[in-house]
Amino acid sequence: MLNLRTLHTTDSDFETAFRQVLHWSADTDAEIEGRVADILAAVRQRGDAAVLEFTARFDHLQVASVAALELTRDELKAAFDGLPPEQAQALNQAAARVRSYHERQKKACGESWSYRDEDGTLLGQKVTPLDRVGIYVPGGKAAYPSSVLMNAIPAQVAGVPEIIMVVPTPRGEKNPLVLAAAYVAGVHRAFTIGGAQAVAALAYGTDTIPRVDKITGPGNAYVASAKKHVFGQVGIDMIAGPSEILVLADGTTPPDWVAMDLFSQAEHDELAQSILLCPDLDYIGKVREAIERLLPGMPRQAVIRASLEGRGALIHTRSMEEACEISNRIAPEHLEVSSRDPHRWEPLLRHAGAIFLGAFTSESLGDYCAGPNHVLPTSGTARFSSPLGVYDFQKRSSLIEVSEAGAQVLGPIAATLAYGEGLQAHAQAAEFRLRRTAAD
Amino acid sequence: MLNLRTLHTTDSDFETAFRQVLHWSADTDAEIEGRVADILAAVRQRGDAAVLEFTARFDHLQVASVAALELTRDELKAAFDGLPPEQAQALNQAAARVRSYHERQKKACGESWSYRDEDGTLLGQKVTPLDRVGIYVPGGKAAYPSSVLMNAIPAQVAGVPEIIMVVPTPRGEKNPLVLAAAYVAGVHRAFTIGGAQAVAALAYGTDTIPRVDKITGPGNAYVASAKKHVFGQVGIDMIAGPSEILVLADGTTPPDWVAMDLFSQAEHDELAQSILLCPDLDYIGKVREAIERLLPGMPRQAVIRASLEGRGALIHTRSMEEACEISNRIAPEHLEVSSRDPHRWEPLLRHAGAIFLGAFTSESLGDYCAGPNHVLPTSGTARFSSPLGVYDFQKRSSLIEVSEAGAQVLGPIAATLAYGEGLQAHAQAAEFRLRRTAAD
Repeated sequence: MLNLRTLHTTDSDFETAFRQVLHWSADTDAEIEGRVADILAAVRQRGDAAVLEFTARFDHLQVASVAALELTRDELKAAFDGLPPEQAQALNQAAARVRSYHERQKKACGESWSYRDEDGTLLGQKVTPLDRVGIYVPGGKAAYPSSVLMNAIPAQVAGVPEIIMVVPTPRGEKNPLVLAAAYVAGVHRAFTIGGAQAVAALAYGTDTIPRVDKITGPGNAYVASAKKHVFGQVGIDMIAGPSEILVLADGTTPPDWVAMDLFSQAEHDELAQSILLCPDLDYIGKVREAIERLLPGMPRQAVIRASLEGRGALIHTRSMEEACEISNRIAPEHLEVSSRDPHRWEPLLRHAGAIFLGAFTSESLGDYCAGPNHVLPTSGTARFSSPLGVYDFQKRSSLIEVSEAGAQVLGPIAATLAYGEGLQAHAQAAEFRLRRTAAD
Repeated sequence: MLNLRTLHTTDSDFETAFRQVLHWSADTDAEIEGRVADILAAVRQRGDAAVLEFTARFDHLQVASVAALELTRDELKAAFDGLPPEQAQALNQAAARVRSYHERQKKACGESWSYRDEDGTLLGQKVTPLDRVGIYVPGGKAAYPSSVLMNAIPAQVAGVPEIIMVVPTPRGEKNPLVLAAAYVAGVHRAFTIGGAQAVAALAYGTDTIPRVDKITGPGNAYVASAKKHVFGQVGIDMIAGPSEILVLADGTTPPDWVAMDLFSQAEHDELAQSILLCPDLDYIGKVREAIERLLPGMPRQAVIRASLEGRGALIHTRSMEEACEISNRIAPEHLEVSSRDPHRWEPLLRHAGAIFLGAFTSESLGDYCAGPNHVLPTSGTARFSSPLGVYDFQKRSSLIEVSEAGAQVLGPIAATLAYGEGLQAHAQAAEFRLRRTAAD
């Protein structure tokens, strides 16, 4: 018997119960913060020597120099060549689709633009790739080759000339799929280091490891704390919380499909969150029955059970409209609109990392190979942030070329406002362009 | 006599001297951090009551309720109506140009897009405005109405339905230009609160002040620390360091213009940085002469002198090409290409917040009214970040609709990779879409 809660929006205590389900604290552990600060300071001061010490201590990996921790491009290729053909092909196909999507993304929103106004003044933005980025790839049980593709390919499509991967290999154990994915995704250099020390090496640079401009990729609490710490020194992507799925169902999808989609989030870890929103109580019962029936067959059933009982919920709503409103309050990472008429509901959905439309769009297809990125905002941050994309590996510079005629129009406006702010040099700089020409 | 350093790239100690000029530490004060953490916790726990207490203590403003700190739309309008006509007109003209530029920006990179692949699978991204944003406007000497325009207008163009401004008014003194700018820029609500307590109120919400999704705008060390603290709970823009200008000159611009442009950055504060890069030593001498001659006439000469002597530099380079390389190392906030042939050098410039092309494009024209945003990345962060823009007030959601045919193609790829990662529910969710159709 699975202890999975059902909530009804008509219940008087719904609001309290709903808030309890959503509650998740991103507060960081002060002890971890302190240890991370020490590691960052050590790497900043002592560079390679500190990286070697921490790698020996935390990853039980003893080498003579940081250079010995670099994986050559040949090693990455050998890992790819050693894969079972089916895996090699799946990796290639997934990479091709992810690349194709991100190329479209670059075209849609990542190109320079400019225009001239009636005075001949040129205005626009120049879009350029970052010079060098670092991609953190976790080791151990959370080693996902698909995450290598999802982080490295947008950087590659953006045109970043140097993509550096770091991945811890505790006791020297390398994950061949991760190395193969790095090969397929076009990673330029790779080091077998991890933890806060890897983040520090990328943020500050050492004699062996070059300083990067941005660090992306998921990691444990130490990595997350280190990334938050170096933010400003370098760019970072979002700090990811536990993964979440929200299925908004109108009752037309086979209940087994929905049950398995809820499992596919719950199997990540005990803190992952799977929620079903549906106005059809009878259908909710069928999904619950499917969950009970399918669960014993799942290899990761212990994790799935803990996740569903701890953080899962089946929510019975008054209507699909109300389900959409609740979805907006949750702002989920993954949102499946499991409906015969998904385009009816999509316009009502304002906040979500990714929206999966229709019964055939299982989240797992999007996780691996549909094309869009699987690095998505969690814990309600879809209210204000976006999937990882090509734009994360580019930056923009405003372009302004004021014509002589334009300077005569803009000068008095700028001078008036500058004097109003008490900034006389600003005002005079504008006025100098009024009084004489560049020729004298 | 002004003690402004000249460096020559040919000098053997150039590298050391150059690094010294650039050195600026963004490290935050532990004492400030501690006080800010206390303020944030108090507002989080006690809401309005804490906001009132801190406002009384820090701004010497005693009122009975937070509601009494709200500025009505009528008060904002009255401030605008009370302006001298020249100021009112300048504000309107600047706002119109800034709005027009940001509308172009939204068209160029802020619209939803999608496409269908050969299987009929729909892929794309939906771009939506944030629900509610907070704009921090400093009080006192750094009260800049132009910053109100630059923060609020991109949010308005993005379509944010609720823009909330906070501005401290120590002892109740209100800046009419700031209030008028809020009116012109379409701010929806405004509260006369400031400091870390204002950031906390916006991030967590109180009974009176609604919780926002993102907080932008400059502030003092307390505000910066508070913003960094609440990052993740809400979105924030970059934490700004001291303002900087870099003038890259080929020696064809009147030296007085360049001198005044250097002043216009230096007059902001003692930590602001003004640097000239030029291959023509004779011209550098003329700029220095202009600086010495013009400085005594500047009302803010004390600040300008402190800034130029503390952080300024005239750098003599071997060539314009070398000047461009050095500019890329600096990654300045404002970059003037003061050349007869700015388009020759622009392609060599990879990192800058804004690039001002040609002698007529003084930075101050861009600061107020050319159109592009004046909120720009500082302290070398132009390596990885961008001007404030419409995109900061939007977020993206991936859209995926896999067709039945598409699910047959994608399913085996996803399943292979999911099994490779040990995530069986992911694999089965994909396989369920292979075995049967939505109809059964």
